[in-house]
Amino acid sequence: MNTRIVLARRPVGWVEESCFAVESCTEPQAGPGDVVVQSIYLSTDPYLRGRMNDGPSYAASFQVGHPIVSRVVARVIDSRHEGFAVGDYVWGFLDWAQRSLVRRGQGLQRIDASLGRVSHAVSVLGMPGLTAWIGVAELGRPVPGETVYISSAEGAVGQLAGQFARRMGARVVGSAGSDDKVAFLRERCGFDAAFNYKARDLDDALREHCPDGIDVYFDNVGGATLEAALRHANVAARFPVCGMISGYNALEDPGIRGLHALLVKRIQMTGFIIYDHVHKLPAYLARVAPWVRRGEVVFHEDIVQGLERAPAALIGMLRGEAIGKRLVQVAPESAA
Amino acid sequence: MNTRIVLARRPVGWVEESCFAVESCTEPQAGPGDVVVQSIYLSTDPYLRGRMNDGPSYAASFQVGHPIVSRVVARVIDSRHEGFAVGDYVWGFLDWAQRSLVRRGQGLQRIDASLGRVSHAVSVLGMPGLTAWIGVAELGRPVPGETVYISSAEGAVGQLAGQFARRMGARVVGSAGSDDKVAFLRERCGFDAAFNYKARDLDDALREHCPDGIDVYFDNVGGATLEAALRHANVAARFPVCGMISGYNALEDPGIRGLHALLVKRIQMTGFIIYDHVHKLPAYLARVAPWVRRGEVVFHEDIVQGLERAPAALIGMLRGEAIGKRLVQVAPESAA
Repeated sequence: MNTRIVLARRPVGWVEESCFAVESCTEPQAGPGDVVVQSIYLSTDPYLRGRMNDGPSYAASFQVGHPIVSRVVARVIDSRHEGFAVGDYVWGFLDWAQRSLVRRGQGLQRIDASLGRVSHAVSVLGMPGLTAWIGVAELGRPVPGETVYISSAEGAVGQLAGQFARRMGARVVGSAGSDDKVAFLRERCGFDAAFNYKARDLDDALREHCPDGIDVYFDNVGGATLEAALRHANVAARFPVCGMISGYNALEDPGIRGLHALLVKRIQMTGFIIYDHVHKLPAYLARVAPWVRRGEVVFHEDIVQGLERAPAALIGMLRGEAIGKRLVQVAPESAA
Repeated sequence: MNTRIVLARRPVGWVEESCFAVESCTEPQAGPGDVVVQSIYLSTDPYLRGRMNDGPSYAASFQVGHPIVSRVVARVIDSRHEGFAVGDYVWGFLDWAQRSLVRRGQGLQRIDASLGRVSHAVSVLGMPGLTAWIGVAELGRPVPGETVYISSAEGAVGQLAGQFARRMGARVVGSAGSDDKVAFLRERCGFDAAFNYKARDLDDALREHCPDGIDVYFDNVGGATLEAALRHANVAARFPVCGMISGYNALEDPGIRGLHALLVKRIQMTGFIIYDHVHKLPAYLARVAPWVRRGEVVFHEDIVQGLERAPAALIGMLRGEAIGKRLVQVAPESAA
């Protein structure tokens, strides 16, 4: 029997498990031109929180009673479409379900399994990787010797942003919410420095770890961290704004204080969304896939097993419990 | 007898007349290489408020007991410097005094009186004009048909920013704090629309006057106006941040709410300070001086008479009572 995860009610503030329901659903049947896929990995991403609200954001709202949708890595199990064969690995924006019907194969992307692990199609070799690249290489533009500070640095985007910035010659500093994450950043991702923002005063930590100030702040969280980065920024600093996760569950926006620093320090803050840059993925893959294959760029996944645990996995990711990209594995990669 | 205006005490919140004192001072005497000038026009500018504080900003603090300094248009009355002759018009960062000694002529700029009125050297043909140009042409970059919204639009910078944006084909909307200013923007400066922000709800006004949303917000004020502009901005909007005058007298920073729009709408906010761009003045003058001479760009000055009224003139400007560039005239342009 097929099962899926639906939005049971909209969250108010923090997301709870009661916002979701696991329910049975029909087994997909391929009509002419259609593709049926078995989900393997569901991607959990911070932006999904915004889609659970009713208000407008950059991605459409989920509807109550309808399935949660995110990027899903899947395997074709039935195809009446000439572009897809049984056994192909694919990814697309699919329901959080065991199996899905993709009418006319619409939006489905084949995964080139020779590039790396198939799960990488939704992480280092997909949108999170491209997000890190655009934020660092196009908007942050660090030159050798500059200091790049990254918040939520252990996340899918943050860990790559740090590694890309180091390749560009920058000194890279990350913050994260546990000592384990800090160790991961230093030992696995090669960050020059990292600190646990929950364990100490942000200003003290930035004074210590960014003694020459911040030239690029890669913002994943907004809030108090953004305020601190404004205080420690250098003249002509660049602030690519990739996410403001600290506010996603807040009922009221407390505002960002100290924005006058934009003027005093001639800071450029640029919000960006990866949908505007997807056409750059082929060039990104040509450049970055070899680095990943040679182990010069590492990528950490945090894999939770079982579709029914997807709501808890998403909630935990939003609460900051994951190190690296959190995926939910729904089925084995290969057919039994 | 020479007189000058000094900072008597630092303001707390709003500036008051008691922050200043008028005092007698020595008559300047030119030594070898020195220049003595008679002040004609003192420039009053919003950034002077920041210099009255003790904290660091982009311009050094004034010292208690020492003169206020700003851009001053002056006439050379004695010179032992080969670059300056008696009768030359000059400008420089000079004390608010009747007459000043400029040692070695340092920092003094000759004014080419053939370009326009000598007072224009500190307005449309000087830094305020270049500020408007950089904000619009380099950072805002409107294309024909886009909507440019300018706050504090009647100011020295705002009125020019609007006229420059119109020359680039944009639809230009300004806000100001009185019906007289609104009439000035519509009738004298050719703005497509203007409104009195004190007389109505900002959201209503922006909905009415920017029905297609805001593509460029030229920020002179920050605060609630910036928050409203974030709400009404289009995707990929540009926000040159030239000033945040609404907060200059505030004791506490209430924060900017809704900054998440930067991300959702991919907005680029760029703080800028004209000191970084002064090398572009000759090219600016070559382009803009003919427009002013031909009357295609108008510029309104608000001239207060008398050195002793300079403190009140500055305070009034900070409170928004001036239309256009507020100058304090200390002496006639020509020698008696």
